[in-house]
Amino acid sequence: MADDKHEKGMALRTQLWGERGAKAGNEFLSGFDPDFGKFLNDELFGGIWSRPGLPLKARSMITMAALIALGRAAELKVHIRGALNLGITQAEIKEIIIHLSQYSGVPTAVEAIRTFSEVTAPKK
Amino acid sequence: MADDKHEKGMALRTQLWGERGAKAGNEFLSGFDPDFGKFLNDELFGGIWSRPGLPLKARSMITMAALIALGRAAELKVHIRGALNLGITQAEIKEIIIHLSQYSGVPTAVEAIRTFSEVTAPKK
Amino acid sequence: MADDKHEKGMALRTQLWGERGAKAGNEFLSGFDPDFGKFLNDELFGGIWSRPGLPLKARSMITMAALIALGRAAELKVHIRGALNLGITQAEIKEIIIHLSQYSGVPTAVEAIRTFSEVTAPKK
Amino acid sequence: MADDKHEKGMALRTQLWGERGAKAGNEFLSGFDPDFGKFLNDELFGGIWSRPGLPLKARSMITMAALIALGRAAELKVHIRGALNLGITQAEIKEIIIHLSQYSGVPTAVEAIRTFSEVTAPKK
Amino acid sequence: MADDKHEKGMALRTQLWGERGAKAGNEFLSGFDPDFGKFLNDELFGGIWSRPGLPLKARSMITMAALIALGRAAELKVHIRGALNLGITQAEIKEIIIHLSQYSGVPTAVEAIRTFSEVTAPKK
Amino acid sequence: MADDKHEKGMALRTQLWGERGAKAGNEFLSGFDPDFGKFLNDELFGGIWSRPGLPLKARSMITMAALIALGRAAELKVHIRGALNLGITQAEIKEIIIHLSQYSGVPTAVEAIRTFSEVTAPKK
Repeated sequence: MADDKHEKGMALRTQLWGERGAKAGNEFLSGFDPDFGKFLNDELFGGIWSRPGLPLKARSMITMAALIALGRAAELKVHIRGALNLGITQAEIKEIIIHLSQYSGVPTAVEAIRTFSEVTAPKK
Repeated sequence: MADDKHEKGMALRTQLWGERGAKAGNEFLSGFDPDFGKFLNDELFGGIWSRPGLPLKARSMITMAALIALGRAAELKVHIRGALNLGITQAEIKEIIIHLSQYSGVPTAVEAIRTFSEVTAPKK
Repeated sequence: MADDKHEKGMALRTQLWGERGAKAGNEFLSGFDPDFGKFLNDELFGGIWSRPGLPLKARSMITMAALIALGRAAELKVHIRGALNLGITQAEIKEIIIHLSQYSGVPTAVEAIRTFSEVTAPKK
Repeated sequence: MADDKHEKGMALRTQLWGERGAKAGNEFLSGFDPDFGKFLNDELFGGIWSRPGLPLKARSMITMAALIALGRAAELKVHIRGALNLGITQAEIKEIIIHLSQYSGVPTAVEAIRTFSEVTAPKK
Repeated sequence: MADDKHEKGMALRTQLWGERGAKAGNEFLSGFDPDFGKFLNDELFGGIWSRPGLPLKARSMITMAALIALGRAAELKVHIRGALNLGITQAEIKEIIIHLSQYSGVPTAVEAIRTFSEVTAPKK
Repeated sequence: MADDKHEKGMALRTQLWGERGAKAGNEFLSGFDPDFGKFLNDELFGGIWSRPGLPLKARSMITMAALIALGRAAELKVHIRGALNLGITQAEIKEIIIHLSQYSGVPTAVEAIRTFSEVTAPKK
């Protein structure tokens, strides 16, 4: 069952960030501490994110909502990328940011607009 | 169009909290300041919540996510009630709380569990 | 000069909360830790609050703004009382709460409305 | 009346950031979402900021207080610029930062000092 | 190994809150969601809290520090009780609260003083 | 006694950041406002940090915990450096970050990992 969680975690992170992104995340976290890297892969992604009670897109949306509300720009960037990979549209992410402006304040929305613009800017 | 927003706001709040709840909210806010009450009804509920780009249930979910993450228990209570009225299930709200434990910390989840339990406790 | 700060701190807290309120605050804090009580009286109130560069009312307003934004209801209650004693009007405090709704989110404003209502409710 | 709010919003933002700054803000927000840009101009600046109950300088001060307390550096920078344009002095902004150190913690003050220094550094 | 984590988690929570407290916590969390209850026991207490790299008392202290800084009163109460059971003295907890006043603001310290006083008040 | 606090503050900051670091901090803060610089040296470092009730290492740990939990990256960097100078090991700081992931959320831990990596990266 532990192995199962590991597989599920890897699969889920690949869905969110592609094979290369999932691997890069792995290396970053395991380079810091292998057990914590394993905890995040197996328990957070293989466990909590993989629970059946809520569709993946809804999980991605509430994750972005929390990150916007708390003003965590770096992690928000990562999760906007993940959301787009899941098929959440740019228009939907905009709605989340605008909606949140009233729940965590306009400054958190403006910060999120900056992050959103960085992620969605056309590559040069 | 301003009138339109007013109607939309009233309709939306009735969907969330029933006729009695919407009226009580109105009285509370307008008792404090009529213009602010009008702003919240017309602009927040009739405007932002009524934008077509995101389904109502998704808006309710990201609202709960922000309130859990920020530890705003009193408003969370109000929005859990609203969510249940929209047809979001207790099981789905549980998933949101559990998911958020990893994004804003276990203590925010435990606080949300207390709030959730108060709302869903069988009436005596 | 240290004594001077002590006197200034006592005087300032008396202005904010009356003689009885200042004494009660003293007892609460010194009952916890006399040196911390002294630090707050001498350095926070006798020092920082007593710096000449900003009028007392402005200091009271920015204190309330921070407490609303951070959702610190118990301390906000204390400082709304202090603000009223300085001659800041109920109408001005309402403006602060409404203004802040856009900077820290509507839920922080709604919480502040509850606190404001408790302080300003007619004594029975 | 809606047009009135639009004019008021434009006028107020011009007071805060000059014609060029107000226009740049407009473009940034409307580039993200025209309706949200309109909401912020008309309702936040033309509505809430333009309410008569609190002088503009007091609104600017409580806005900076909230942004310092919440650690929103990018928006604080924008509002320190606005404050200076309203005639709030550098010395007064320093007092706000120092005062807040006791209400949201010394680290929020130190971050605000960095932001303040960037805004007020002599142009090379 | 999974069973090992379960045992470790139960043992650690018993150290913190006694047999009765650990059981009550279990029932509260498992009543909400058995898998989340298991996650917290096995992964949070049996996993992270049980890592050898930091003494238990240090873990308790940084937990209280985070809860004070974030203003999570209900969870702080639970962890002050746990700290006292580990042999952390009341005087040490006072130092943590006073120290934190400068890092998350005096209001978070005053809130923590209230919580501390409730926990340590002589039973009537 | 005031002089005593000044000496203690200087000594403590020298322990944390070396002679050069303490001086640089002094210049930065006194350049902003000499009295606030004096307050921080004398009252925060010479006063609160120098209270005998808690060992220096424990104070450093709870300071880092608060800064991680509140997401104050710039100040966290400064205090990770201070912690290493006190003899707290890199392994212990890692434990604090991992532990905190459950109390203020995984994103605060990931941000802290980035800060930690910057401080501990081999100088080129």
